[in-house]
Amino acid sequence: MADITSVSPLAPPSFPDLPVVKGARFAAAAAGVKYRDRPDVMLAVLDPGSVVAGVFTKSATRSANVLDCQDKIDKSDPSGAAIIVNSGNSNAFTGRAGDASVKAICDEVANVTNLPASRVFTSSTGVIGERLPHDRITAKVAELAHGLDEARLADAAKAIMTTDTFAKAAATTVDFPGGIVTIAGIAKGSGMIAPDMATMLVYIFTDAKLEQADLQSMVSRLNEKTFNCITVDSDTSTSDTLLVAATGASGVQADGQAFEDALRDVMLNLAHQVVRDGEGATKFVSINVSGASSDADAKIHALSVANSPLVKTAIAGEDPNWGRVVMAIGKSGAPADRDTLSIKFGDIQVAKNGWVDPDYQEEQGAAVMKEQEIDISIDLGIGDGTATVWTCDLTHGYISINADYRS
Amino acid sequence: MADITSVSPLAPPSFPDLPVVKGARFAAAAAGVKYRDRPDVMLAVLDPGSVVAGVFTKSATRSANVLDCQDKIDKSDPSGAAIIVNSGNSNAFTGRAGDASVKAICDEVANVTNLPASRVFTSSTGVIGERLPHDRITAKVAELAHGLDEARLADAAKAIMTTDTFAKAAATTVDFPGGIVTIAGIAKGSGMIAPDMATMLVYIFTDAKLEQADLQSMVSRLNEKTFNCITVDSDTSTSDTLLVAATGASGVQADGQAFEDALRDVMLNLAHQVVRDGEGATKFVSINVSGASSDADAKIHALSVANSPLVKTAIAGEDPNWGRVVMAIGKSGAPADRDTLSIKFGDIQVAKNGWVDPDYQEEQGAAVMKEQEIDISIDLGIGDGTATVWTCDLTHGYISINADYRS
Repeated sequence: MADITSVSPLAPPSFPDLPVVKGARFAAAAAGVKYRDRPDVMLAVLDPGSVVAGVFTKSATRSANVLDCQDKIDKSDPSGAAIIVNSGNSNAFTGRAGDASVKAICDEVANVTNLPASRVFTSSTGVIGERLPHDRITAKVAELAHGLDEARLADAAKAIMTTDTFAKAAATTVDFPGGIVTIAGIAKGSGMIAPDMATMLVYIFTDAKLEQADLQSMVSRLNEKTFNCITVDSDTSTSDTLLVAATGASGVQADGQAFEDALRDVMLNLAHQVVRDGEGATKFVSINVSGASSDADAKIHALSVANSPLVKTAIAGEDPNWGRVVMAIGKSGAPADRDTLSIKFGDIQVAKNGWVDPDYQEEQGAAVMKEQEIDISIDLGIGDGTATVWTCDLTHGYISINADYRS
Repeated sequence: MADITSVSPLAPPSFPDLPVVKGARFAAAAAGVKYRDRPDVMLAVLDPGSVVAGVFTKSATRSANVLDCQDKIDKSDPSGAAIIVNSGNSNAFTGRAGDASVKAICDEVANVTNLPASRVFTSSTGVIGERLPHDRITAKVAELAHGLDEARLADAAKAIMTTDTFAKAAATTVDFPGGIVTIAGIAKGSGMIAPDMATMLVYIFTDAKLEQADLQSMVSRLNEKTFNCITVDSDTSTSDTLLVAATGASGVQADGQAFEDALRDVMLNLAHQVVRDGEGATKFVSINVSGASSDADAKIHALSVANSPLVKTAIAGEDPNWGRVVMAIGKSGAPADRDTLSIKFGDIQVAKNGWVDPDYQEEQGAAVMKEQEIDISIDLGIGDGTATVWTCDLTHGYISINADYRS
């Protein structure tokens, strides 16, 4: 059995130094929701004038927290905002009691921080269907508020972990004529990961100045090419939440492509880290599809390959089994033509024109599969549609984690 | 690592005694397509007057054999028919050479059996993308034809096995006023199994008298509730083929519900056997969905649960993790309402009205999960739609088989 407590072999070499995002303060505390002796609640408080945008799971059984966030997200309000997140219990499928838990937490945060409850956003992650002991969280809100500090985003990253084997953060800055804008974000997630969205919580903070509607449309757009292009196991969580908060405290108006590119970099970096912590993962895999009828069809093909248990187990076994890639393209439901299909593993042309490439040697494919990072490129040869999706392999480690862990 | 050569723990206690189907004769031979020292080709020859109906994979990259069968299937022809099947090589994604292999095999069978090539149906199953050494098969056709016998259907069942751990067959008879009609069938398949259709070859023979069009519509209809309701790993093969041949040799006209019910029993029995031989399977699971908006939506929900890696690993771990069932319903894309959803494991009410049942005890769920056959029943509470889907668990055995086996 795999050692499921060790850090993923695909983890970044170190946790990044996180810059201060002006106008945003953080704290973490050990509330004992489920885990003992570790921080399991984080609080972020954002200065007045902040705007918050978000994207959420489309699950029909989404959690009480998600429903509450969705109600509040598109309001512009000058009062500032707070985000409180616990790990260990997802508060999903907990009926009316779940709604009451969200209300109790929001009320207590509002009370302690002098914000309206309508500006308090909550997330919960962990086991589904067990009542959230929210009084353990509300009992810690005053301590959290007391501990708020611009420099504690890293502590927040640790507090939201569940089966994650490493804390996830990314940051960047953008130089504008009017000054520097900072973006820093954290994420958790390692299983129940599939688009729309992953079992994943992501919180990104910037001191840029933006209108809520502009930030929301940018986040929704970028999400489609980042978090909605990763998959670990095709399963979609009831709690997926991405919140992006802009405090405006830099004083710099951050419209335009440079900011959007920087935000995309942070989102993509965090998305890749979630895949790199995929349960049991030993390989980081990019599936690049081109030549499809449309971008949407390219993504259908890419996800069909990325979610195929037979493709994922072949990668785990370092087997250059391109026949399974052909199978996954064939089953996707999007148009494909056997006789124009070509496949590369890394730079190696494996198949083209409906059959194995005459120059292909099995040893070449096998060498690519031994790498820790693998590119599989598929050209359908029937159009201009492209998509890239990131995933990991399916190993004994995934089975070990999920045949035991109660999520 | 699981012992991948032992017989599935879910296998039926014994291979059935197969009755003679008048007008159908069978043979098997060892052609050495890939496997050594075992029969790997089977031939069935059907008397003049036989009709053949079929259903095939919808994969866009389906094999040359499937394309050829589809061209021939809806013809009525009084000449009789032949079916020849090899294991060890799927002849899929083999370009124009694959088409040539099919033609060579059909021509040789036609030549030896005095049938037109348009009445010879072929299937191939095994590795994708490697050229089929069809001369090894054509070299054996005369021997096969010489060995044809009404009593050799069991030999045919063994010859079509690949990673199957047991040979699969089922049979029944129906009493009509005009005489007895017999139905007997064989199947192979244990991985790359998902509807539309499974990685699966199925051949069913009856001596009933039917029009081709009537048999075809019956087979298509029954297929939706049998083979298209099973899934092992959500992957869909490039070779899936179901052929049902009616020789008419009983002289009994077999229209009406009694025959359709009997044929459904044989199809369902074979479909269940394919799941029971799911790669690495240790549990046989029925997912029963009711109260959905429509039968089609019920099937979407049932398949979402049956294909969820997190549900399947929980079952492997004997964990009554109903939260993962809620997750899979939520992600399916079909309508669901958290507050009307109820879930049973076996006879135990686990969740209802959007939360855990107040009387539910974890030990009750755990006891159900220890069984080898598990029923999970989900009522959406929003309509009259129903569906049942059959699947198995996802275990270390599946990983062991598929991280090594080149399919």
